[in-house]
Amino acid sequence: MTDSQGGAATSPMELYEKLTAQGEEVRGLKTAKAEKAEVEAAVQMLLKLKVDYKQTTGQDYKAGCPPSENAAVTDNGTAAGGVGAGGDDTVDPWNVSTTNAKGVDYDKLIVRFGSSKIDKELVDRVEKVSGQKPHRFLRRGKFFSHRDMNQVLDAYEKQKSFYLYTGRGPSSEAMHVGHLIPFIFTKWLQDVFDIPLVIQLTDDEKYLWKDLSLEDCHRFAVENAKDIIACGFDVNKTFIFSDLEYMGASSDFYRNVVKVQKHVTFNQVKGIFGFTDSDCIGKISFPAIQAAPSFSNSFPQIFGGRKDIQCLIPCAIDQDPYFRMTRDVAPRIGYPKPALLHSTFFPALQGAQTKMSASDANSSIFLTDTPKQIKNKINKHAFSGGKDTVEEHRKHGGNADVDVSFMYLTFFLEDDEQLEKIRQDYTSGNLLTGELKKLLIETLQPIITQHQERRKQVTDETVKQFMTPRPLNFKI
Amino acid sequence: MTDSQGGAATSPMELYEKLTAQGEEVRGLKTAKAEKAEVEAAVQMLLKLKVDYKQTTGQDYKAGCPPSENAAVTDNGTAAGGVGAGGDDTVDPWNVSTTNAKGVDYDKLIVRFGSSKIDKELVDRVEKVSGQKPHRFLRRGKFFSHRDMNQVLDAYEKQKSFYLYTGRGPSSEAMHVGHLIPFIFTKWLQDVFDIPLVIQLTDDEKYLWKDLSLEDCHRFAVENAKDIIACGFDVNKTFIFSDLEYMGASSDFYRNVVKVQKHVTFNQVKGIFGFTDSDCIGKISFPAIQAAPSFSNSFPQIFGGRKDIQCLIPCAIDQDPYFRMTRDVAPRIGYPKPALLHSTFFPALQGAQTKMSASDANSSIFLTDTPKQIKNKINKHAFSGGKDTVEEHRKHGGNADVDVSFMYLTFFLEDDEQLEKIRQDYTSGNLLTGELKKLLIETLQPIITQHQERRKQVTDETVKQFMTPRPLNFKI
Repeated sequence: MTDSQGGAATSPMELYEKLTAQGEEVRGLKTAKAEKAEVEAAVQMLLKLKVDYKQTTGQDYKAGCPPSENAAVTDNGTAAGGVGAGGDDTVDPWNVSTTNAKGVDYDKLIVRFGSSKIDKELVDRVEKVSGQKPHRFLRRGKFFSHRDMNQVLDAYEKQKSFYLYTGRGPSSEAMHVGHLIPFIFTKWLQDVFDIPLVIQLTDDEKYLWKDLSLEDCHRFAVENAKDIIACGFDVNKTFIFSDLEYMGASSDFYRNVVKVQKHVTFNQVKGIFGFTDSDCIGKISFPAIQAAPSFSNSFPQIFGGRKDIQCLIPCAIDQDPYFRMTRDVAPRIGYPKPALLHSTFFPALQGAQTKMSASDANSSIFLTDTPKQIKNKINKHAFSGGKDTVEEHRKHGGNADVDVSFMYLTFFLEDDEQLEKIRQDYTSGNLLTGELKKLLIETLQPIITQHQERRKQVTDETVKQFMTPRPLNFKI
Repeated sequence: MTDSQGGAATSPMELYEKLTAQGEEVRGLKTAKAEKAEVEAAVQMLLKLKVDYKQTTGQDYKAGCPPSENAAVTDNGTAAGGVGAGGDDTVDPWNVSTTNAKGVDYDKLIVRFGSSKIDKELVDRVEKVSGQKPHRFLRRGKFFSHRDMNQVLDAYEKQKSFYLYTGRGPSSEAMHVGHLIPFIFTKWLQDVFDIPLVIQLTDDEKYLWKDLSLEDCHRFAVENAKDIIACGFDVNKTFIFSDLEYMGASSDFYRNVVKVQKHVTFNQVKGIFGFTDSDCIGKISFPAIQAAPSFSNSFPQIFGGRKDIQCLIPCAIDQDPYFRMTRDVAPRIGYPKPALLHSTFFPALQGAQTKMSASDANSSIFLTDTPKQIKNKINKHAFSGGKDTVEEHRKHGGNADVDVSFMYLTFFLEDDEQLEKIRQDYTSGNLLTGELKKLLIETLQPIITQHQERRKQVTDETVKQFMTPRPLNFKI
């Protein structure tokens, strides 16, 4: 599970994964009764890695126990520290939490995950290559981390195209504004680079993880597709698929799933995802299904069977473990590694300590909320960085860094100057909490209303069009 | 993984699986924070099972360690004792071996696996219900064990039909006569009961287990299908499918795979199949793919979406672990348990201690062998139960029980009286080894030649017909 990228410093998690892989290697050589010298060399490398690991983490390497200061097993059976150690932040595909009101420490996460920071230079380069002003999510560090984005741009400059892959786990009909973040950004990427996009709806995953029927999960997938389509994707460049449907429609997709499944051991998914022996075999093998769309020959109808089209995955950083695994497997099965763009998390109304929950109606603004509900929720639940009284606030100013209304504006207010002015006014005390909330309400209400209007236009026929395997506008 | 059937004695393996399942139950209740009384009742049951286990096996129960006197982990990573304890026989889907020249002790296996013996009463009943003389494999105990066959016959007598499911793992182009056993018998069942049949070619499994490419495994599947078709199956009642193809052709099949995957834990497949943490996630989840064809709604094109059509699986006993797992899961996902008919193993030319190996050309008669090759192989390699000299043989007689030529005749010579006479003559010393071998050569040569002639008639078009998902002659 190693991932050597641009000589980035090796994180504890990377070392752990290297060690696990090396252990596999040694076992494999011994089983295959390889040459003594070869086995010894592999064992030497293993010992060297163990020393490095001890130096970096201060702990002894233990197979099956990823590095973590508090790797307690949580209720759903995943090790909280499954994706890395450090601080109090927990970030994996099923848990995101921090004790810091400003949210997760993303700089630490970059080190832990061994990804690269999206710096000003890269943002400028995206602007140069695309010929477009960078999206506000790029300008403001909402997409803050990447893997191999420079490589994607290098190739694009040489007329070598790529495709986008993102997804959603349809756990309910209800989607909230946070769920839109990757889709809003992906649509922008599709527009400025003029490239095809595949969107995976993991209804099988939701069935495996939740107490839901297959039918419900699939129904949620179709309902969610409507909200995704309402983001404005181009039907000629976008294929949306449910796993339950597409698996049964493409033997090429299944072939890639099996290829990945052959090259990942239980030890590895245990290290990466924190699976235990009590987890069902569906969960254990699922990562291969999320990996497969990273390979262009999973979609012969789009890419004509070519396996070398580069994939770029915009996603929230909690999905990175899936793609670290994918990037490790890719070269071993003859495919290019997918590149990634990682977003931060969209905070809950109650504060940036957690991701939002689709099961708590007051934790976020839902895409079905009325203007009145939006107003009430923000006024009642949005955590404020303001002071307790108007007098104190005027005197000391508010704290924009922990204020959820301000955070939401950084996602949805397009005008940089206006945003900066709001920040300054709030920090100085010129702008009161109620006024700040009003600004957010006025920004979000039309966005949600317009989304609802676009969603109404999405007929079953439109959904069917997007979800039918078919050629897209893509010149090979 | 319990399987209570007709009050059969509980085997160590059954107890082990019950214990594993009960452990899961307790963990599940604790995780779900169930009522204290409920948890306590489950724990009491667990403790009781542990006492039973200790009494039966003389060992303490240990999670992940199935009962076995010699549970050494073999080269391919499966615990040799994975499917049960007792004697020196090893029987699981990847290993069959015994130190007894007469072959595996099948009576012991029935006790270990908790299945039921096919006794004279059941054979008579098959004759009565089908109105046909029982196949020689039934008359001679080649199919010796079953699960729920009486239930299948009860229903059939009440005009409730059933379907057959069998399969093959296509690990090479070469098939030998032993591979034909389940197919010869299945064809007979199809004919006498006039029922549909599905045949699974597990090309995905072979890719996961062997050092082969996906393309080769799939090619072997298609080649093997030709030999299977040459057994004389009715195209109007038979659907042959490769997993790699059918998975991508039927979302109903994948839905059943996911349903099974949700209801089986790694602990369970570890207990049943001896998987380890170093096994790839594809192997770990594969049992669900072999389970899915046991449920009629995996084939909506044949059964119109009905999920309640009873399935009967004729297979070699080494495949039973897959279907014990399937029978455990079935009621939990609302499906009937498949019934089973188990065959003994076809011995290698060198003796009944092992199954034949497709990689050793001299270990068996291949379906591509010429009459001359058949003659030479039998004369040169067939283990003889005869004495060292003609004089001794005439005086003391031969041992038909360990003589491979005689064993082969019990599979392929139709005439019961002739077979019995051969046995008596050989045992008395009237019949010499060379003469016995000649009888086998004369029996097998025309069978193989005729098979080759029928196989030549099988065109690519015929294969395509059999392998296309389509309705079959089946009245619901």
